[in-house]
Amino acid sequence: MKLDTLGDWRRTHYSVDVKPEMDGEEVTLFGWVQEVRDLGGIRFIILQDREGTIQITVSQKNSSKEVLAKSEALQKRYSIGVKGNVNKTTMTPRGVEIIPKEIKILSTATIQLPIDITGKTPASLETRLDARALDLCREENKAIFKVQHVAVNAIRDFLFERGFIEVHTPRIIASATEGGAALFSVNYFDKKAFLAQSPQLYKEQLVMSLERVFEVGPFFRAEESHTRRHLSEFVSIDIEQAFADAEDVMQLLEQLIQHVCKTVNEKCQKELSTLKYKVEVPEVPFKRLTYEEVLRELKKKGADVPWGEDIPTPLLRTLGKLHPYFYFITDWPRQTKAFYIQPKEDNPELCEGFDLMWRWIELVSGGTRIASKELLIERLREKGLNP
Amino acid sequence: MKLDTLGDWRRTHYSVDVKPEMDGEEVTLFGWVQEVRDLGGIRFIILQDREGTIQITVSQKNSSKEVLAKSEALQKRYSIGVKGNVNKTTMTPRGVEIIPKEIKILSTATIQLPIDITGKTPASLETRLDARALDLCREENKAIFKVQHVAVNAIRDFLFERGFIEVHTPRIIASATEGGAALFSVNYFDKKAFLAQSPQLYKEQLVMSLERVFEVGPFFRAEESHTRRHLSEFVSIDIEQAFADAEDVMQLLEQLIQHVCKTVNEKCQKELSTLKYKVEVPEVPFKRLTYEEVLRELKKKGADVPWGEDIPTPLLRTLGKLHPYFYFITDWPRQTKAFYIQPKEDNPELCEGFDLMWRWIELVSGGTRIASKELLIERLREKGLNP
Repeated sequence: MKLDTLGDWRRTHYSVDVKPEMDGEEVTLFGWVQEVRDLGGIRFIILQDREGTIQITVSQKNSSKEVLAKSEALQKRYSIGVKGNVNKTTMTPRGVEIIPKEIKILSTATIQLPIDITGKTPASLETRLDARALDLCREENKAIFKVQHVAVNAIRDFLFERGFIEVHTPRIIASATEGGAALFSVNYFDKKAFLAQSPQLYKEQLVMSLERVFEVGPFFRAEESHTRRHLSEFVSIDIEQAFADAEDVMQLLEQLIQHVCKTVNEKCQKELSTLKYKVEVPEVPFKRLTYEEVLRELKKKGADVPWGEDIPTPLLRTLGKLHPYFYFITDWPRQTKAFYIQPKEDNPELCEGFDLMWRWIELVSGGTRIASKELLIERLREKGLNP
Repeated sequence: MKLDTLGDWRRTHYSVDVKPEMDGEEVTLFGWVQEVRDLGGIRFIILQDREGTIQITVSQKNSSKEVLAKSEALQKRYSIGVKGNVNKTTMTPRGVEIIPKEIKILSTATIQLPIDITGKTPASLETRLDARALDLCREENKAIFKVQHVAVNAIRDFLFERGFIEVHTPRIIASATEGGAALFSVNYFDKKAFLAQSPQLYKEQLVMSLERVFEVGPFFRAEESHTRRHLSEFVSIDIEQAFADAEDVMQLLEQLIQHVCKTVNEKCQKELSTLKYKVEVPEVPFKRLTYEEVLRELKKKGADVPWGEDIPTPLLRTLGKLHPYFYFITDWPRQTKAFYIQPKEDNPELCEGFDLMWRWIELVSGGTRIASKELLIERLREKGLNP
């Protein structure tokens, strides 16, 4: 098929912006054919663009030969442009249809589509990923991308307002951040390099000058773990602040999360309803449970965690049922946390490290860093690491 | 030395926010010792924080034993907190000094620093990178990070306003985007994978649903090239738009650059003056030179580029002198551009690809993409690639 070119056509409206009060107005729309229904003398084309859908109505009687020919050629997922007039009608859910004066076919598609993007006929994840371009047209997937976009932007706004500077640190690094177990290796011009698992060492150097920094971007962990919480590659939001302690960071985080929930609620009503998900804006401060309290709560549920051990995933699930939203776990035994977390002044067996939890999932971990070189060396030795 | 802890001290002001009209007010400041000058009965400590510097004045006569002892221990780059009163004075450039009531030493530093961060004694790049944490305290480096922060944020704002959605695409990929020459390989659980050189294939799939997307983040090119324009790892800003052609993208880009220059000028006056750099806000539209015109201009300068060849770097430098700011080069021969760039309708030897230049440097390249599968296959064959 000879395709049309865009030429001087440009979109005047998204589908959802066409309203009954625009009756008679000429509009130019672009999108993809979602459905064609042929009722003999009349043909309905549902055009989908990123904001929604609209009906194009082609009647045999009132259409030009060109429009009829084009509309007959249309198949699902063809990419098209439509120039036509808005018609107020009671026959469509939104009260409008477009009577086309001209149709452009910009690209075609195979007749037998590998997946049904309306989701009426569900497909396996594998099939969906093999046809990802189509799968991305599902309303749920579009909603996920939009919510992510809004959420990450809300995080940035929040941190900007508090004087944080966004930085970009290297991903190809010469040595591990914290021990080399979970690193991917890269062939860097015949030398062995690694993919960064976090910006930690860089942001620590940066706060000695910029004081408050953060980075949003992909990091890499070669953990051979098939859970939905362990990704080889993930987008992390990493924050570092000078002249602050764990409590400052916890306050920052709870306010940050509250702000993100509020913003997503305000800006993503349509997307949340597509996803059938309700975001509850949490109150601050979040609950703060000490490690000891967590152990006591688990004991009441019949589970014994020896003091000083990390809490295994099945027990985090138990905990998540007791605390079904956001909360912190604080006052961890220092051996459960990294060597650089500051021991507590009043009890050096504990440390100023925390986990921010969402139900049973660890969202963030953080803590006050040790500032004393001597203590850092001591703690490295204690962990069997080479200072 | 026993270090102090932060305790309940929190910053009340940055150095530059302390003004003469605050005479007598108590403030808490944090930062690093930039300089100590001892004049016998009086000691001046210059405290640097991320926003600037301020003088702490310790007189033998009027200070407590504790303050005297701490102030005697101070060395360059010690990290300190100071609680004290603002004193209006004619003896300092900014008209204020701090009379300390209490000093905390939060961290120490070696006495012999590897570089002089005032820049009075210049150091080689290598020495500076070996002491990067210190090097980052140089005012010029802080300014660079802040300008970058403001510029990237201005780009996001600009694109958000025009309905672009920010996305995050994978970096570890199974095969090359456009031919495998310039890819880093990664050992991915004993399979060979690669680092993405651009988000191209992902954003192309995304625009079939989200229509306007962009990504800001690190990408990787294994080019063995020792120029300042070829980095193995770089932060790219990658934009993709549906239902648009090269001219739309050029207009978007010139407005984007104008907006960024304007914003940096507004928000980074201090940083630009530190860097001794003046940003000129360019007028739009930018100059558009066709490839043919460029060849003619170069010919006048005595340089012959055979039609259909790319323009070599030394000649781009010549061109940069003729056009010393932003401009586009358009109407490239189709063989100089990637297989997927749309040939021009009126002359298929040329294509709808462009380069956005800044002086002699290519800032962006882009173009209208081919929508027809048949034409894509034809062009792939022409380039000797396997469709």
